[in-house]
Amino acid sequence: MTAPHKGVQAPANAPSPPVGESLENGILTLAMQRPERKNSLSEEMLAGLQASLEEAAANPEVKVVVIRSTGNVFCAGHDLKEMTAARAHDDRGRAYYAEMMGRCSTLMQTVVRLPKPVVAVVEGLATAAGAQLVASCDLAIATDTATFCTPGVNIGLFCSTPMVALSRNVSRKQAMEMLLTGETIDASTAKEFGLINRIVPKDYLEPVVKKYAETIASKSPLTVKIGKEAFYNQAEMSLSDAYDYCANVMVENMLARDAEEGINAFLQKRKPEWTGE
Amino acid sequence: MTAPHKGVQAPANAPSPPVGESLENGILTLAMQRPERKNSLSEEMLAGLQASLEEAAANPEVKVVVIRSTGNVFCAGHDLKEMTAARAHDDRGRAYYAEMMGRCSTLMQTVVRLPKPVVAVVEGLATAAGAQLVASCDLAIATDTATFCTPGVNIGLFCSTPMVALSRNVSRKQAMEMLLTGETIDASTAKEFGLINRIVPKDYLEPVVKKYAETIASKSPLTVKIGKEAFYNQAEMSLSDAYDYCANVMVENMLARDAEEGINAFLQKRKPEWTGE
Amino acid sequence: MTAPHKGVQAPANAPSPPVGESLENGILTLAMQRPERKNSLSEEMLAGLQASLEEAAANPEVKVVVIRSTGNVFCAGHDLKEMTAARAHDDRGRAYYAEMMGRCSTLMQTVVRLPKPVVAVVEGLATAAGAQLVASCDLAIATDTATFCTPGVNIGLFCSTPMVALSRNVSRKQAMEMLLTGETIDASTAKEFGLINRIVPKDYLEPVVKKYAETIASKSPLTVKIGKEAFYNQAEMSLSDAYDYCANVMVENMLARDAEEGINAFLQKRKPEWTGE
Repeated sequence: MTAPHKGVQAPANAPSPPVGESLENGILTLAMQRPERKNSLSEEMLAGLQASLEEAAANPEVKVVVIRSTGNVFCAGHDLKEMTAARAHDDRGRAYYAEMMGRCSTLMQTVVRLPKPVVAVVEGLATAAGAQLVASCDLAIATDTATFCTPGVNIGLFCSTPMVALSRNVSRKQAMEMLLTGETIDASTAKEFGLINRIVPKDYLEPVVKKYAETIASKSPLTVKIGKEAFYNQAEMSLSDAYDYCANVMVENMLARDAEEGINAFLQKRKPEWTGE
Repeated sequence: MTAPHKGVQAPANAPSPPVGESLENGILTLAMQRPERKNSLSEEMLAGLQASLEEAAANPEVKVVVIRSTGNVFCAGHDLKEMTAARAHDDRGRAYYAEMMGRCSTLMQTVVRLPKPVVAVVEGLATAAGAQLVASCDLAIATDTATFCTPGVNIGLFCSTPMVALSRNVSRKQAMEMLLTGETIDASTAKEFGLINRIVPKDYLEPVVKKYAETIASKSPLTVKIGKEAFYNQAEMSLSDAYDYCANVMVENMLARDAEEGINAFLQKRKPEWTGE
Repeated sequence: MTAPHKGVQAPANAPSPPVGESLENGILTLAMQRPERKNSLSEEMLAGLQASLEEAAANPEVKVVVIRSTGNVFCAGHDLKEMTAARAHDDRGRAYYAEMMGRCSTLMQTVVRLPKPVVAVVEGLATAAGAQLVASCDLAIATDTATFCTPGVNIGLFCSTPMVALSRNVSRKQAMEMLLTGETIDASTAKEFGLINRIVPKDYLEPVVKKYAETIASKSPLTVKIGKEAFYNQAEMSLSDAYDYCANVMVENMLARDAEEGINAFLQKRKPEWTGE
């Protein structure tokens, strides 16, 4: 979790980067490490996550990305002090807010469009854009003490961008309850709603995350890339368009070397060897 | 619940209005009060609800709307006697049915488009367009003995307009089971399906509804208006369109006085004072 | 379950058809009966199911279709031996794969577009396109030992067409977990996800399926046809378009003889007699 950023040795007095990175067995773990600021999506944190994800996309060593946190807050959403400071601008902050909302929306869509699975591991509170980050990931594991909320309504700022991701994970009435009351839900409710996949007691978290990520990292990266992209694309289509599109995706996938190898290995009852082609 | 309609003193022998209204602490309670007709959505009831909702939209005193009922049926859907009477018309009722379906669909969309949250409080049976009304509300609380069904298929009239709301609340197979079997589900199943938010024993209903409505009424009305409108709009967009749209909504929300006040109050650890601007 | 295909007496040595048919009380049961090939969607099986469904659509005796299986696998998805054999073609199988994906997608959409309800009865494992078949049916009943998975990712071939149906039944994170891990879920999880409607112990399966199918078969076929078609059509529309469309569907349904009969019977507290008009 505290591995030096990008393997570069930091000078003795330099601040640690906002996002710690460690890569092991194809699993890239990104750790938001500004617990003193509740890992809020400050300018620094947004830039750190965006850069790490873009590198992850380009790095063939990375098979799966895990986003987690240090401290007892997973992520507290936007940095309200930075936002408030911009009110002193000539335009009362309009340009700054547009810039920050754009950056945050880009980050969330980068998670969705990343050609590799992204797993959120939630310890502590995930709130506002922090809950949005969980909702944007392909998969999410949480400890049994994790909590989730979209409390913008309490401070006069409705969680309108968070709800884009939230409402694509949970049903309408469930989303509306979180958005209109601002109340916090526990991990059990979040699983029931479909916001997270698994709940694990803290003591068992590390081996479960490792096994889960290794399971996904063991698949053909090409196959996962094809499938993840197709999943989100077809979700926005009519049934007949989705079938036309996905039938074609399947044909291309069948002709890839990894499908030939995978199916042969299955028929020959042996382990496949992926080349990612 | 039996407060005079719109505060006007009714003449001694005048029938009570179909919808009772009472406004307290920003909470407007609308009570369907035709228990002898199972609160069916007759011409009179449709008109009463439509008028009450339009007034609620325009009245700045109203922060949240609660729709409930008197008697042991929440709402039994369309008035089949009125519908049947229209078969005697020259056109066998076609124009009348088109008119009534149009009015009912308008009512349901008025609930969704109302710039204030609408909470259904369900005691007893909600059936057909009555279940649709529950599904159309932003939030729903039910007693543990409440039940729900879309039984049109049993009388040869599929619940086609009710399913527009139902299928935007519950999953496809769950909706299809209700629609094709016509069977009744209990409150527990309705909560599991996502049709309602909370189940409360009858003895605890009043304080829970009060607390729930007060929680929502305590938010900035402007913020809630912005957020509710954006919620249903973005739900029909692609992911990237939804982000473009909601990022802009967030910027406008940030520049509103209530967001400035709310965020300042949060940072200063005090209660915000909303002006609705 | 082993009734001769289409009522034709098979010659003594002829192989049994891939899909057994039996029609009783308006309930057409289609049984995939190639247990030695795990009821995979081979060319033969795809053709058999397609033909049976098209006949079911046209046959006024058929009120509801039940799709089930013999052996301990409901359906294992595509036939990988047939698929692999096509790699020897001049085009490495491209045309064959396009043909097979097209046929399979057509079959799944035939289930959705069939003017009669289709119920999957799942015993044993439903995998890949077998899980897709369950997801494509209007309703599904499973035994408590039934299991479901979309394991294409394990053999390098992402379940891209299966996910079209799967993701229209279960939430995004739930679908993504099945698709990215390839892991198997049990009946209880499948019900929680919304992939199936009911779980029944094997010993109780026959009477439950019979009762369930008879309940649906007792409705007006015209009403069910109108409603099922409208259900899937409106699911792809915006809220206001869905209301415009379904309000019109309701008007036409009201003017049908079966609705008049059904409503009259209800008001007169007697059983309706459907003519399907």
